[in-house]
Amino acid sequence: MGYAFEDFTAGDTIDLGTTLVDRDEMLAFARRFDPQPFHTDPVAAADSVLGGLCASGWFTCALWMRAYADAVLAGSTSQGSPGGSEIAWPAPVFPGETLRSSARVIDVRRSGSRPTLGLVTIQGRSAVVEPADRVGVEVLRFTFVGMFGVRPTVSGS
Amino acid sequence: MGYAFEDFTAGDTIDLGTTLVDRDEMLAFARRFDPQPFHTDPVAAADSVLGGLCASGWFTCALWMRAYADAVLAGSTSQGSPGGSEIAWPAPVFPGETLRSSARVIDVRRSGSRPTLGLVTIQGRSAVVEPADRVGVEVLRFTFVGMFGVRPTVSGS
Repeated sequence: MGYAFEDFTAGDTIDLGTTLVDRDEMLAFARRFDPQPFHTDPVAAADSVLGGLCASGWFTCALWMRAYADAVLAGSTSQGSPGGSEIAWPAPVFPGETLRSSARVIDVRRSGSRPTLGLVTIQGRSAVVEPADRVGVEVLRFTFVGMFGVRPTVSGS
Repeated sequence: MGYAFEDFTAGDTIDLGTTLVDRDEMLAFARRFDPQPFHTDPVAAADSVLGGLCASGWFTCALWMRAYADAVLAGSTSQGSPGGSEIAWPAPVFPGETLRSSARVIDVRRSGSRPTLGLVTIQGRSAVVEPADRVGVEVLRFTFVGMFGVRPTVSGS
């Protein structure tokens, strides 16, 4: 059984593990969804303010999402998300890097209108763990609300 | 020549055109990045609060981004984005729908520290234009800052 609303506690940080940024996938994503030269063209990217070919911010979000889906959402009572209040890409992500992602529980509250639903405010974050010269560089930070069903009450118990 | 900082005026809304939500691509994206049952499994999705198989919010963002890249960023002086202040997925997106996207210019200001850079605050938005029974339903709204170089001054002029 996966996460239900009752399993989230404000202040907790859930480790979502590490993700390798695959160069080919990063490029394919950028060519399809975010074809800016610093995301698709190594030569143009080297001359850009970003300092080299780097990931679309949406790709960084998508990688975080997969880590969160595997660690938290699988088998959970998730009912999706209405959105969030902040999103930041404080530094570029380069191909071949490894990121560590996390989900920090900021707030938990029962829905006023739907008693079987709870709202969990989460701060997602990814930071570099490899290569050594970029360890700890934060590359993604965002805050959103996750909707989770409460655990069903067992009748007769 | 594409957009430079000087081409953005607060209050303007830029039409980014329409995008068809392709079912196969929507499913492939969800399986890779957001494998929740209501994004990947038509049977489970029919039973969910979302009412049917629907797009990952990140896929909706990615489709908006491609429309914005084609209409605004191509050939522009874009230097990326540090992030934004709000993201909302007010309603689900279903496969086969057509969305119209837009970029509304909220604010423009020159960078204090880098005189050749300008910061443009943009509200991105996507809403359904087909099918007829969902026309006008807003499915994505978010606000972010785009960094754009100013137009080079022509020396001697």
